[in-house]
Amino acid sequence: MERIKPRTLSGFMELQPERQVQMEKIKDVLREVYSLYGFTPLDTPVIEASEVLLAKGGGETEKQIYRFTKGDNDLSLRFDLTVPLAKYVALNYGKLSFPFKRYQIGKVYRGERAQRGRFREFYQADIDVIGDGQLDIINEAEITSIIYNTFTRLGLKRFVIRVNNRKILNGFYAMLGLTEKSSNIMRTVDKLDKIGAEKVKALLVEENGITDEQADEIMKFISISGKNSEVLSALEGYKGKNEIFDKGIEELILVTKYLADFGVPEENFNVDLTIARGLDYYTGTVYETMMLDHPEIGSICSGGRYDNLAEYYTDKKLPGVGISIGLTRLFFVLEDKDMLNDSMVTAPADVLVIPMTEDLSYAIKTLAVFRDKGIRTQLYGEKKKFKAKISYADKLGIPYVIFIGEDEIKENMITVKDMESGEQKKMTPAEAGEMVKEALEKKTADKVIKE
Amino acid sequence: MERIKPRTLSGFMELQPERQVQMEKIKDVLREVYSLYGFTPLDTPVIEASEVLLAKGGGETEKQIYRFTKGDNDLSLRFDLTVPLAKYVALNYGKLSFPFKRYQIGKVYRGERAQRGRFREFYQADIDVIGDGQLDIINEAEITSIIYNTFTRLGLKRFVIRVNNRKILNGFYAMLGLTEKSSNIMRTVDKLDKIGAEKVKALLVEENGITDEQADEIMKFISISGKNSEVLSALEGYKGKNEIFDKGIEELILVTKYLADFGVPEENFNVDLTIARGLDYYTGTVYETMMLDHPEIGSICSGGRYDNLAEYYTDKKLPGVGISIGLTRLFFVLEDKDMLNDSMVTAPADVLVIPMTEDLSYAIKTLAVFRDKGIRTQLYGEKKKFKAKISYADKLGIPYVIFIGEDEIKENMITVKDMESGEQKKMTPAEAGEMVKEALEKKTADKVIKE
Repeated sequence: MERIKPRTLSGFMELQPERQVQMEKIKDVLREVYSLYGFTPLDTPVIEASEVLLAKGGGETEKQIYRFTKGDNDLSLRFDLTVPLAKYVALNYGKLSFPFKRYQIGKVYRGERAQRGRFREFYQADIDVIGDGQLDIINEAEITSIIYNTFTRLGLKRFVIRVNNRKILNGFYAMLGLTEKSSNIMRTVDKLDKIGAEKVKALLVEENGITDEQADEIMKFISISGKNSEVLSALEGYKGKNEIFDKGIEELILVTKYLADFGVPEENFNVDLTIARGLDYYTGTVYETMMLDHPEIGSICSGGRYDNLAEYYTDKKLPGVGISIGLTRLFFVLEDKDMLNDSMVTAPADVLVIPMTEDLSYAIKTLAVFRDKGIRTQLYGEKKKFKAKISYADKLGIPYVIFIGEDEIKENMITVKDMESGEQKKMTPAEAGEMVKEALEKKTADKVIKE
Repeated sequence: MERIKPRTLSGFMELQPERQVQMEKIKDVLREVYSLYGFTPLDTPVIEASEVLLAKGGGETEKQIYRFTKGDNDLSLRFDLTVPLAKYVALNYGKLSFPFKRYQIGKVYRGERAQRGRFREFYQADIDVIGDGQLDIINEAEITSIIYNTFTRLGLKRFVIRVNNRKILNGFYAMLGLTEKSSNIMRTVDKLDKIGAEKVKALLVEENGITDEQADEIMKFISISGKNSEVLSALEGYKGKNEIFDKGIEELILVTKYLADFGVPEENFNVDLTIARGLDYYTGTVYETMMLDHPEIGSICSGGRYDNLAEYYTDKKLPGVGISIGLTRLFFVLEDKDMLNDSMVTAPADVLVIPMTEDLSYAIKTLAVFRDKGIRTQLYGEKKKFKAKISYADKLGIPYVIFIGEDEIKENMITVKDMESGEQKKMTPAEAGEMVKEALEKKTADKVIKE
């Protein structure tokens, strides 16, 4: 038979089993945290009608779309989870209760140029709170608590959530008479981390066509930094000149005010006037999340407040606030930076039962004792040499092996081997079940990220 | 602004939030059961190179494939999870430990003609055990235990797992000198449930070109029925004439022998000589799972033993046994037959916290008391009338509402309302947390399927 060489497309992540367990653990933590905050899971199709998905049209994204026809249908693969959400909410408006809080963890597709760490198929993990006509600012405050809890439960400690408010930026640029240029200015300011203050200033004058004085004002403004309270009090000095600016300050103060009550430590939260997030539709609080030891990665969780989720589909005003984690890229980075906790159990089973007799009845009955306690238990039924059986458990990292021979059956016992310590002990199945369960509870408390 | 009418493509399931929770619950149960048996999760790309995915070529499936080009790449969406598994195992052969046991729950794509209950995008939930060169028969026995536990934990009671062995069929047809016609004969016999014995016999003679005596022999053979022990002893009468047949009997006896030890009740298991499963690559035990009250649905979980998983990619002999659940179709059927348990909690939260004061500090601090106990807790921060707030909880089916007013804050208490009983009580946050947690534990024990 002529054979085809098996391969996986470049730009598509396909993990080894142990890695996949770590990825699943991350998804579990995300689902758990999102659920704890009252978000409901949603699952929309990967394929949508092109006319619906590309309603907004234009932009860099459109070139990257996987678009094709099947029969008479012009179809596209989703490139994010926000457009499908907008469609969903517009379509089901009458049936939903608002605020509508949903999370979705799903694959999206962008035909980017393949390069290391860039993916054409990747998971996004999104949460959004959608209001009907209005949405209280407290939702914007709570988002920081969600980001904090998500990464803390994953095991990350050294990260900071950077927060700004687009109204402050818009108001500030309005004060300078630069409203029309503000989008371009923000894009330039966004390069601060990469190119430094001097070059940003030069670009502001050269490319954005603003005066030297205006550029100085901008540089002075974005250089406001320090503790959150210091930044906020520096901002007080600008108040009273522009209504939108003042509203932005008020919102930022409120978002900051409840941090302690939400349990977000001061050191994990930074008011940062330099961040804007590129997308034009953000209108209030914006978020970025940086790994302190790897700023070069950029933000690992971003989002913000917007005023019109679904304007391309409905005349209903649907304001919202949402954040997104690029899960596949995050996982790649964690692996790349050696931050995945490989001491967690990644084996397919917690216990491997190895029968040493021809008849398997007793061994099979033993399985249920463990499985009923929630212990992942594999029966090893292959006719192999003893050494091969042990080596199977060893290679996979299965923490416990159970031997069942003639003696054990006669005595109604089993022999349990702790693969880490090498210790071996005869006990009743029920005793062994309790012992393993207790030991595993400690192990599964392991976080998936280590620093 | 010109608006696009939002719509979801026909043949693509997109659920309402409450339904989605039930779907997620089903996926959770599947993941849980598969994990308990030592299967490791796998996640392969939705898009594969066409030449890899269609290595087998031909067949009805190929016409249904979503196939397209992007740049220079000829791409296809996966139409099942078996071909990607074969690719994965061939590609990673050197790194995997065998038996390799994996589960995968993922979307697959087939451009079938749209009709009620047929989907173009649907979930399959697959498990497979892959051996390297050989795989013990005990794995085929354990599969019945997995099927039984899966559906029992979902809440289904009235179902039967039908089991047969392809070696018995192949051996039997060899005895009659009909080896070459056996595939066609099996396809005809497969129609027994639908068209009845008389028509099957007629078709056998007319379409398969066999003698009347041969057809009688076949009809006699497939009419063997009764208790498992009765069927097995009837089969004894055919022994000694064909080696493959005898091997099949031996395997079927072994699969049946350990049923009780695996905890599978006799009434949920039927040796059934009429089932063959269409696919040619099955070589041993084959499985079907029928809902007793809805035989018209056909099998809801099927599979079998095969000898060569990845012959299109590698010369390694990789025998395996696997089963698959068509999850999207199953969900559709459960909803259609009113078998989804709508008394389970499908709300996005267990508790809705409604602050009645301007300052939210106390309310926000209360959230953590509940969330730390794993209780899904939503803060309702919208400035609405009291009635609108309660109605929000009511519509969503949130079981508990917590009011926090001036009095509660002064007394360090909260007021808890049980939305089902209407009972309202002032207690400390810690007491309330314990009370709610206990009550929820009872509720979440609810099965997702009711009969």
